[in-house]
This record gives sequence, C-alpha cells and structure tokens, in this order.
Amino acid sequence: MRGVVYKAPFQVSVEQVPDPKIEHPNDAIIKITSTCICGSDLHMYEGRTAAQPGLRFGHEPMGVVEEVGGAVTTLRKGDRVVAPFNVSCGFCKNCERGFTGYCLTVNPGFPGAAYGFAGWGPFPGGQSDYLRMPYADFNALKLPQGTEHEEDFVLLADIFPTGYHGTELAKVSPGESVVVFGAGPVGAMAAYSAMLRGAAEVYVVDHIPDRLNKVKVIGAIPIDFNNGDPVEQIRTMRHGDGVDKGIDAVGYQAINPVQGKEDPATILNLLVQIVNATGILGIIGLYVPDDPGAKDPHAAHGELMISFGKLWEKGLSLGTGQCNVKRYNRNLRDLIIVGRAKPSWYVSKVVSLDDAPTAYQNFDKRADGWTKVILKP
Amino acid sequence: MRGVVYKAPFQVSVEQVPDPKIEHPNDAIIKITSTCICGSDLHMYEGRTAAQPGLRFGHEPMGVVEEVGGAVTTLRKGDRVVAPFNVSCGFCKNCERGFTGYCLTVNPGFPGAAYGFAGWGPFPGGQSDYLRMPYADFNALKLPQGTEHEEDFVLLADIFPTGYHGTELAKVSPGESVVVFGAGPVGAMAAYSAMLRGAAEVYVVDHIPDRLNKVKVIGAIPIDFNNGDPVEQIRTMRHGDGVDKGIDAVGYQAINPVQGKEDPATILNLLVQIVNATGILGIIGLYVPDDPGAKDPHAAHGELMISFGKLWEKGLSLGTGQCNVKRYNRNLRDLIIVGRAKPSWYVSKVVSLDDAPTAYQNFDKRADGWTKVILKP
Amino acid sequence: MRGVVYKAPFQVSVEQVPDPKIEHPNDAIIKITSTCICGSDLHMYEGRTAAQPGLRFGHEPMGVVEEVGGAVTTLRKGDRVVAPFNVSCGFCKNCERGFTGYCLTVNPGFPGAAYGFAGWGPFPGGQSDYLRMPYADFNALKLPQGTEHEEDFVLLADIFPTGYHGTELAKVSPGESVVVFGAGPVGAMAAYSAMLRGAAEVYVVDHIPDRLNKVKVIGAIPIDFNNGDPVEQIRTMRHGDGVDKGIDAVGYQAINPVQGKEDPATILNLLVQIVNATGILGIIGLYVPDDPGAKDPHAAHGELMISFGKLWEKGLSLGTGQCNVKRYNRNLRDLIIVGRAKPSWYVSKVVSLDDAPTAYQNFDKRADGWTKVILKP
Amino acid sequence: MRGVVYKAPFQVSVEQVPDPKIEHPNDAIIKITSTCICGSDLHMYEGRTAAQPGLRFGHEPMGVVEEVGGAVTTLRKGDRVVAPFNVSCGFCKNCERGFTGYCLTVNPGFPGAAYGFAGWGPFPGGQSDYLRMPYADFNALKLPQGTEHEEDFVLLADIFPTGYHGTELAKVSPGESVVVFGAGPVGAMAAYSAMLRGAAEVYVVDHIPDRLNKVKVIGAIPIDFNNGDPVEQIRTMRHGDGVDKGIDAVGYQAINPVQGKEDPATILNLLVQIVNATGILGIIGLYVPDDPGAKDPHAAHGELMISFGKLWEKGLSLGTGQCNVKRYNRNLRDLIIVGRAKPSWYVSKVVSLDDAPTAYQNFDKRADGWTKVILKP
Repeated sequence: MRGVVYKAPFQVSVEQVPDPKIEHPNDAIIKITSTCICGSDLHMYEGRTAAQPGLRFGHEPMGVVEEVGGAVTTLRKGDRVVAPFNVSCGFCKNCERGFTGYCLTVNPGFPGAAYGFAGWGPFPGGQSDYLRMPYADFNALKLPQGTEHEEDFVLLADIFPTGYHGTELAKVSPGESVVVFGAGPVGAMAAYSAMLRGAAEVYVVDHIPDRLNKVKVIGAIPIDFNNGDPVEQIRTMRHGDGVDKGIDAVGYQAINPVQGKEDPATILNLLVQIVNATGILGIIGLYVPDDPGAKDPHAAHGELMISFGKLWEKGLSLGTGQCNVKRYNRNLRDLIIVGRAKPSWYVSKVVSLDDAPTAYQNFDKRADGWTKVILKP
Repeated sequence: MRGVVYKAPFQVSVEQVPDPKIEHPNDAIIKITSTCICGSDLHMYEGRTAAQPGLRFGHEPMGVVEEVGGAVTTLRKGDRVVAPFNVSCGFCKNCERGFTGYCLTVNPGFPGAAYGFAGWGPFPGGQSDYLRMPYADFNALKLPQGTEHEEDFVLLADIFPTGYHGTELAKVSPGESVVVFGAGPVGAMAAYSAMLRGAAEVYVVDHIPDRLNKVKVIGAIPIDFNNGDPVEQIRTMRHGDGVDKGIDAVGYQAINPVQGKEDPATILNLLVQIVNATGILGIIGLYVPDDPGAKDPHAAHGELMISFGKLWEKGLSLGTGQCNVKRYNRNLRDLIIVGRAKPSWYVSKVVSLDDAPTAYQNFDKRADGWTKVILKP
Repeated sequence: MRGVVYKAPFQVSVEQVPDPKIEHPNDAIIKITSTCICGSDLHMYEGRTAAQPGLRFGHEPMGVVEEVGGAVTTLRKGDRVVAPFNVSCGFCKNCERGFTGYCLTVNPGFPGAAYGFAGWGPFPGGQSDYLRMPYADFNALKLPQGTEHEEDFVLLADIFPTGYHGTELAKVSPGESVVVFGAGPVGAMAAYSAMLRGAAEVYVVDHIPDRLNKVKVIGAIPIDFNNGDPVEQIRTMRHGDGVDKGIDAVGYQAINPVQGKEDPATILNLLVQIVNATGILGIIGLYVPDDPGAKDPHAAHGELMISFGKLWEKGLSLGTGQCNVKRYNRNLRDLIIVGRAKPSWYVSKVVSLDDAPTAYQNFDKRADGWTKVILKP
Repeated sequence: MRGVVYKAPFQVSVEQVPDPKIEHPNDAIIKITSTCICGSDLHMYEGRTAAQPGLRFGHEPMGVVEEVGGAVTTLRKGDRVVAPFNVSCGFCKNCERGFTGYCLTVNPGFPGAAYGFAGWGPFPGGQSDYLRMPYADFNALKLPQGTEHEEDFVLLADIFPTGYHGTELAKVSPGESVVVFGAGPVGAMAAYSAMLRGAAEVYVVDHIPDRLNKVKVIGAIPIDFNNGDPVEQIRTMRHGDGVDKGIDAVGYQAINPVQGKEDPATILNLLVQIVNATGILGIIGLYVPDDPGAKDPHAAHGELMISFGKLWEKGLSLGTGQCNVKRYNRNLRDLIIVGRAKPSWYVSKVVSLDDAPTAYQNFDKRADGWTKVILKP
C-alpha cells in the first residue's frame, strides 16, 4: 500500500510500504478514507525533532474497519470510525484516569504514544491506505455510516479535540474573555471551542492575513501582531484590562512579535503579561525537550527563559501537554452530528494522498489557501 | 505602641509607632496577643525585595477585638480573632470568587494586599501591640474565647493555610505520593496538610538536620540533599518511579543541591524531573518580578530558565501564588478545635515582641531550635 | 412612593408605601427603572405559600443608585446597577463559599433571604419606586451607564442566572443532550443557558403553545406533553436513548402530563425516567416544606412520593435550591454587553408599575403574550 | 469446584459447581484466596430482591491468576489480584468516563454488572474456588506478591471503595463535620474514609452496640438511636448546629429510629433534617426499584415519601448509586501497602468457605462478633 515517508528535512515522499496486519487479538485494520497533515507534522518535516528518515507520517486518520482481531467486541468490518492520534491501552494507571495521551502500556518506558510520531512509539503513520489500530474497542470512535460530515469527523482525530483541550486546560467558562495565540488549525479550533463554550470575547493573535481572516468567521477578534505589540493592542481594546484566560496554540517555534525572530518562550511570556491575576493558561502548542534546530544550547534542551516572578505574583495557573483525545471526541462528534459544530469551516484543501509532498510544502510555507489539508487515499 | 520596624538589610528594631485608629466604619482594631515571624519576612529582611527602610513588618497576627467601626456587624470588643495575612474587601471580582489574595479594591492598581509587606498596600505590619483590620466582618476569623490553642490558631494567619494551599494547588488526594521541597515552616505545613488529606507518602527535601528531624514526627519521609541528588534518592526509594504531586515551599532563593549555590529555578526544575507525567505542581514558595539581590540580570527581573520542554512533554500542570487564606482558615480552625490538627508541633520558640531583633537574626540563620517563632506583645 | 402589595390570593394592588431609608452604613437606596414579575411571585399570588396579606412583592429589581450609606466604597449616586434577588452579607460561612442564596446573617435563624418573599427575611419587595439594598458593595452589580440592554440586564436579577444555575447544578457540558421541564421564563433561560454552554440537543417540555413556540427561536426542541408521554416522545426521537442531563424548571405545582392534574413529584419522576444512568438533575423549580393549597397532607408538608429505587439504580445525582445569583451575574452581564447573549428574546410585555394587578392576572393565567413581564415605575 | 448457592430466603449451601473456563481472549481465571460476604448479599439472602434460587453468590473476590486468555497483556499466572465487584469493559461511554459501575457492554440492556448479583448480568459469584474475570487487564488490580495484608486487600473488592465512594459523593473535605448512618461494614468504611480525608468530626448512627463500639476505635463519635432521636442527639452535641455532609450506608431496609419499624425513606429524611443548608448527601446504601418483601405497594416499586420541600429549601445536593470501584481501588491499595490504611480493623471473622451457611446466618442476625466475614476457600 502507499504511505507518506519522511526522507530528510523539508522532504517527504509517497512510497509503497508494507500492508498492516492484525498483530494482536485486540487490533483492527482501518481502510483510510481521509487523513490530515498536522501542524506538529511540520515540526518533524522541518527537522526540528528527533524524527529519523524513514518515519511514516500521519496521526489524524479516519476510515472504515477492514478487519478485526479475535478479541474485538464492538467493531465489525464496514464500521466507520475515527482514531484519536494517541495510541492507548485503556487500562493502565493513566488511561483509567482519562489521561490517554500518557498511556504507560503501549510505548514502554515513555508515557504516551501516537501514530507516526518521533519518540511516541512504534506505530506507523496514518497518511497511508491502511492503518493498524491497537486496542481497537478502546481507540475507535464510531461514526454514523455513510459519507456525511467526512471533513468534520476527520478533525476529531486531533485538531478539534486538541483545540478544545486548550479551553479545558484553561477552564474557559461562559462570559469570560480569552486570548488564543496562533490562528493556525489548532489555534482556530481553540478559538472555535471557546466560542462553543460561551466565552464572551475571544482574541486570536497571529500575523498571517489568510488565517486572521478565517477566525473572523466564527466571531473571534483577530489581532495582527504586525500592527504592534499584541498585549498593548488587546489592553487598548479592553480599556486597560487584560483577559481572564489564555491559550498557547503556537509552541516553541514562535516568532517574537517585537523582535521578529524565533524565541521559544515568547508566547508564554506574552500570556503572563496579558492574562489577569488568578487566570489560567492552557498550553497546547508543542514544546520539546530536544530541539536539534534550536538557536542556543538552552533552547536545544527545551530550557526557556520564563517570567516566572511575574507569573507567580499574578497567581496564574497553567496546564500543558498533548490532548487526551478520548476525553472529548465523543461529545464533539455529537455536536457535529446534530449540526451544532462544523469544524471544517477552517479546512481549505482536500487533495489526493499522492499529492502529499506538494501539500506539505505549501502548508509549511503557510501559503495562501493552505490553512488545513486533508489527504484522500 | 510598639512595632517591629525594618531599618536596613539584616536589621530590624522595636520602636514606638502611632496607635492605629478606626479609619472606616468597617474597620476593627485588634489588640495583638500572638504574632509570628514568617519566612517571607526574611526575603525583606535580607534586602531581597523592594521593601524600604521604615516598613513595619508582620502579617501573621492574632488577638482580641479592641474596637469596631460603626458598620461592623458580627464583631464585639473582646472577641478573639485571627487575621488572614491578606487584606481584602470581600466584594470585588476576585474576592467574590474566593481569590482574596488578589483583592482589586484595597490596594488600587495591584491585585492583592497584605499587612506589612513591600508592594502589597499601605497596611502597617502586625508585629506590634495593635493592628487596624479593614473590612473586619470579612477578614476576621472568630476563635473560641480563652487562651487555648493560642500557638495553633496563630498559624492560621498564614503558614498553615499557605501549606494547605500547596496541597490544594497540587490537588493532593488520598493515596497519592507527594514531594515537598523545603522543610521550613511552610514546607512543614504543606507536608502536614498532605498527611491530613490522606496522602500515602510525603517526601520532604531539605538539608538542615533540625528541620528534617521535625518532619519525621508527622510521618513524612525526610530527604537530605546533602546526601546526594534528591531526585535520585526518591527514585531509588520508589524503585524507579517518580511521585504523583509536587510542592515548592522554597521559592526563588533556593540553593541548587548539586552546585551548592543559589539558583532561582532549581526547585521548579527538580519538580519537573521527579513528578510523574500528568502530575500537578503547587508552587507556594515566593517568586518575585524584582529581586535587587539577584546574581544575574534575568533573575533580577524574575526571569528563570525552566525545563519547559520536559514539563510539557510530561503534561504537567501547575498552580502558583500566595494563599487565599479565607478559603481554608475556617475548616483548619475546626480541625484544631476538635484536636484533629495541632500545627504548633512545628513551633519552637515563643519570645517577647521586644526580642524581635534577636529572633529575626536566629530565624534567618536557620539556627538550631528557631524553626518558627511566635512574638508575644 | 408606590409599591405592589399582596392583598389576598389572586389579588395585588399598587399602593402608597413608606420611602426606604439608609438604615445601616453599608446600605444603598436604588431608584428602580425596571422590575419583573417572577414565576415564584405567582406561588405567593395564588396563596400557595406562607405569604401574608400586606407583603410587598418584587425580587427582580434594577435601577440607579439614589443614595449610599457612609461605609459604601464602590457605589456613587447615579450608578446603574442590578440587584440579585438574594439579600446576602458577603462574609458568613455560606456567603464566603459563594452560597449567597443561603446567607446566615441577614435573616437570622434561616439560611437565605430575598426581597419581597414570604419567609425569606424582612426585606420589602422591589416592585416599587425605590428599594433599600443592604451590603450594597456586595449585592450591587454595576452596569454600563445609559439605557442600553435594559430589558436584558433586568433579567440578571433572577431568571437568567436561575436558568443558568440549572445548567450548573446539572453540570451541562458541550455536546450533551439535555431535557428541560417547563417552558416558562426560568425553563426558557435554562434552555438558553444550555445552548450557550454548547449542549448538542435541548428538549423543552411544556403544553402551552405560546411558550413552546418561543423556545424554538433559540434552537431548542419543543415537546408538547399534550401530544403524549414526554418521556416516550423523547426516547422515540433519540432512537431509544435517554438524555445526559435534566433540569426541572417547574417545581411542586406541576401537572402530571398523563393524569392531567397537579402532582408535586411529577417532574422529578419524569426526570428519573428520561435521564440516563450516571446523569445529573438540576432542580431549580421551587419546592416548599409548607404548601397551604396542597391536595393531600403529605404534599402540604412538602413530602413527595419519588421513584428513589430507580433513581439509585441509575446512579443519578441531583442538585437543588435557589440560585446564588452573584456566582453567575457578572459573567452573564458580560455576555450581554458584547452581544453574545440577549435573554430578552423571551420578554413579551413591558408595562407600567401601575398596571401590576392586570399584569399579575394575565401572567398567572399564562395568557397569550404574557410569557414574561417587566414593570416600569 | 465449590461455590455458595442461593437456595431460598435465609438458605444458602456450598455445592459442587462447574469450573470456570476462558470464554474470551480477554478473560482470566482467578484462584480465590479470600472472598467476603457483603451486606448487599443479605438483601438477596432475605428474599428482598429479584434473586432466584440457584444464583451463585459472592462479589468480593481476591486471589491469584490461574490462567489468562490470549489477548491479556499485563497479567501472568501467579499474579496476586483483587477484583472490583463491578464487571466492566473499559471502553464504553460510561467506562471511559470512569463510571465502571454502569458499564453498557457486559450486561446488555442494563447499565452495570457484578459478580453474583440478581439483575446485574450473567456472572457467577466469587464465593467459590475459582472465578472467571472478563476484560482482565481492565478489571484486575495487581497486588504485591505474597500473603501480606490479605484481609485488607480483600476489602478493596467492595466495602472499602464503597465506603470511600460515600465520602466522594458527599465531597467530604478536611475540617468538615459528617454524619454516617449505619455502623455496618460499609458505614464503618465510610466513617474510616471520612477520617482519612481529614474530616473534623464523624458521627456514626446505629443501634447495635458491637458495631458502635467498633467505630470508636477510629475516632468516630457513635450515636445510638436507641437513646433517642439521632438528629436531636447530634444537634445537642453541636450546640444546635447540624453537620456539613451526610452519608447513608443503610438503604431501603432501614428501621425508623422513632417508630422502631422498617421505613425505606427513614435515612433520607433524617439526612434532610441534620445536614445543614448547602450540604451534600452521599447515598451508598442500596435502594431498589423492586422489593418483593416491601410492606406497601409504593415501597414495592421503590417509591419513597421524601421530604423534598425541605431538601430543596436547604439547597441540598445528593449523589447515589453503586461504587465505581476502579476509581478508588488503586489509591486505597497504596494506602494499605505503606501502612497508612488498615481497613481490616473492622473484620471480625475469617472462616472456611465450607462454613458459609453458618456465616450467612450469623452475619444476617448481626450476631455479636460477626461484623464482617471473610471466607477462605
């Protein structure tokens, strides 16, 4: 079958790879119908992680059950499902508490696993024709049969729950004011989730016009940091006040909006400035303990210079880490089914799996019209 | 009346100061019967904050109501009360949500106020014969009449609730393993609170034998960092595992246990190492945005080099900031009254207010037998 | 000044009553600009509570500060404010935990107080020209100056927060299915709040066409119990499934939809049937321990025959009681200010205070077009 | 092998029954080393449930893994484990949210399953030599090898977590006052859990001297209702005040302490009286929708006459239902391992499996010295 393979920084190819097989009675094989390129794929694509050539990309897969192992209880050939990007067992100390992003079973020695991700276990990526899904009863989320909402449901694999996770970490409540840094796919989904949860005002900070325009559609307030310090812009709009909650949907490859160059602690320090005392920060943008492309030795080890004195003085709290997709994907699916959520408002491109190399290139460049890409095998 | 006055780094004196008066109908005047020296007084005493000479110290006061303003509803002359170190109004956006440490009313322009603390509002300290308590119905916690439990109740002003706050920020639950950095008064109260909440194991890290011995009394496990890396010591005792939760009761003046010199991010980075993925950190040790005595310009502005990449990879959360004493002091009082808590197990010295200069000196040196000091006017 | 006075069952009049005065330094006098008739006024109006003739009605007041006592800090003459229907002190054990509906200070011997409500303290009602507001710093919620959103802001006194309280008691979360019993003002606000919080589907059960039509406007699904058992109707629409959460916005004067006559436990027992195992019920409809108009001696003492065996088997939880308005009114106000909430979509009549007797009569009859009434002094 | 079989009301026998076999690749067979008789077995034993003759009793089993199915990942022959009384799949909508007591998979058509319990699925009881455990990776809790703490660990199957569940439903917090109705095994464990969580005062109400004496050991305050109305006794001890939280560990077969005869709503109504406004009730005593032995037709259908008007006026909340054992058993196990909890303080008898008939008889009579019974195969 075909799969997207990482060759070198800024280079992927679509190659013939081995078909997956049932390796354990709780496995299922999924025939992929849609699969996205994720912003976190770009960290690997750019050579900014420990990913080695040969890694097969893709952790946002959905499709149809092709085959199930002998112990699988609830799935049948033909069932339409979407997989969380996390691979998890369902019964370890972390999974049983809902921390499926930190499974202790499937990637021994490291808490957490994902399809097609450097360091997150031996699970080939899902930008391919088929995918092996371990512990399928636990990991598969069933979808209504047919083809409806395909472009919405595929976002349940990662970015819609991940954006929502930001609002959950920050405990966004009705009537609150929220800032989201990053108008990329995850930032857009965080802003969308904040609106769904009843936030009063959602400010979204970025500098790419195409993306800032997108978030206007859902009633968020775009802040272009090319127009000046985003903290001051927001304070001015709020008559001097800050905001209740903040979400970082950018991570360590952030550009300092004042200096115009990469600074991995930028977003954290901006959040410390703009979020009011007693506020909460949801940090869903990726931070890594090893960055081969970092500009200085501290950043190379994930050590960042953070305004912690001010953070403490304000009594801020923060939550971090990758999303436990299973906590949210069922309820978000139900919002899609009844038409109350339509996350595909942000999707701009649906292309063939064979066009993955071009898609990676354009998405990485933040090219106009490439805000989010779905690949169709 | 007498009051403890800051003169210069490492120098306080007991001087005649003006008697407090009712300045607002909601005020009360308290005749002090007991008042402690706090570890956070030492940051000021050592010249490591913005405190200016002339500041009157003391934010852990208890005593008897001497006089009430015309609007006070629930207090009468003679009532025995203890004051939270925070001064708060009870009706602003933060107070009404329980964040009384971040009151927006009493210290205009800055969220939060305290008696006798640099930058925290115009409220003279309570190491004195009398104290003016604003919004007395809200701030006073009534105690049983008499003199019983005096040395326990005075700890309700700050360190018992503050230690408890650490366990609340870290959401310590029955059966969990917890590490507390710092065996000083606040660390001891955090460890004690963790035990009261049903933690299975509480490790307390320090290097002062007098303090490490103290925490053994309550069943905590002392870890002397002079005996080696505390992270490795704990992992060895736990057969390779880390702990569920962590509390920082040291703050920015921490000594790096490996290098043996001051390093303001030490405790945070040790917590990132030893707390398991999905864990929570309660940061009650003080961090400041301006440290006149810092060794480098970043630390002088409260900017610390934190292993954020690893923190994020582990999906850790953290809560920070000074304690909202009113959230906890009523229930902790009730534990004292029925004899289920006796925080004075940690108190070692009760001296006259006139002996404050000597007491500061010994407490600052962590002299044997000076783990916690109560001053009696 | 004028005030609405209860004379006898089904009879109120607008009479000259004494002007309120500052009685305590923390009081304020409010000049009323808008004030609603509440569904709970009707329980008194119909003689179904302990209310005695002479009681002055009205607990949903808003207006402009006319005068403040000497201890009031944050209010000035001319400030536009809305009052929670609860009267509370801000500093008792219940208020400090946010349970302002159960204040222990202002109505000695009974936890909780309200303006113009039988048994809830000595506070004259606010269907009048002026109102005395105790502990004004705590009880007043400031509004933007001017007259904008008047019909929305007045709903912050009771029904918008009370409806929201139902969703909070039931912990309504994004993606959930919810049933609300009652399409009156409180039920409508509960359904509206559930939608604001991101519920996937909100079913609203009633039998009055005017009200069922109203809730369609916000995307809720009307269920007319004149068309058959509402439990079966909902199960049929949901392919056999029940709902995640349930809200009772009717209370003890409910009509059994099958028998067509009053049965005070009807709504509770319907909720037990239709809410899924592990679900939560928010009971905001009024239940009373003494009902002079009850049909049997048990109901007269508030003793109801509840399917508790089934409730337990399903592991249901429930929360009850009057709303603690201050918990929600600030954030709901902010939603109104930015235009994200407009609760006045449900208001149908704005009449002069002098027309109160007619308004009571029509509102009590659920007359067409009298879903919610605002009185203007 | 041998198993305890229900023959008729008040009659069980130990009989030869078929050995269990691996029926599904995720099954394990456990060789039982200890297994308890539960208070809920007595409801069946007395003919007060839908249990039919031939049912095999026992839902509190622990032992050693004898054999595992081909899909089991974490268990090996010889592992020492304890089973939650609930049987659950780990991956349905309820299990994934932690509601393992309401599994939707293993007992089709009814949410929840248990070993050896009428109506709770086709799972033979564990008062036997061997037990089949479905979804063994999910259901088994591993214990340290050996025989230490055997009498403590076996209580992790049900009564220790169930008692703890009462404190969790009632959200018992440090410093609170709590009443527990029932000093039987579950009530004792609820009181013990409340103490472990830091409650200030725990009142335990019963009328059996042997049981009331037991709870004194842990510092709880026994209230003998033979000495008068327990509500008045507690109010007198508390100078007129009620308590913060309440736990019902009795259920529907309660004896009205005033009338001296069975009244299924007794405990609920006493809790409404004694728990303060804003309090929370944890209802872990069993209530059933069908009681063949009820005295009146309402009780026969689980319909109880509850003081709901007063409950609502006080703004009480309540949680109900069987315990989701997996939520608590891991942490409670850890408390046992380090010696911080020793729930076997309440166990009074350890007898041979062959003596089950005598043990049932004595336990049912609340005979002196038969507070809790462990059977050893």
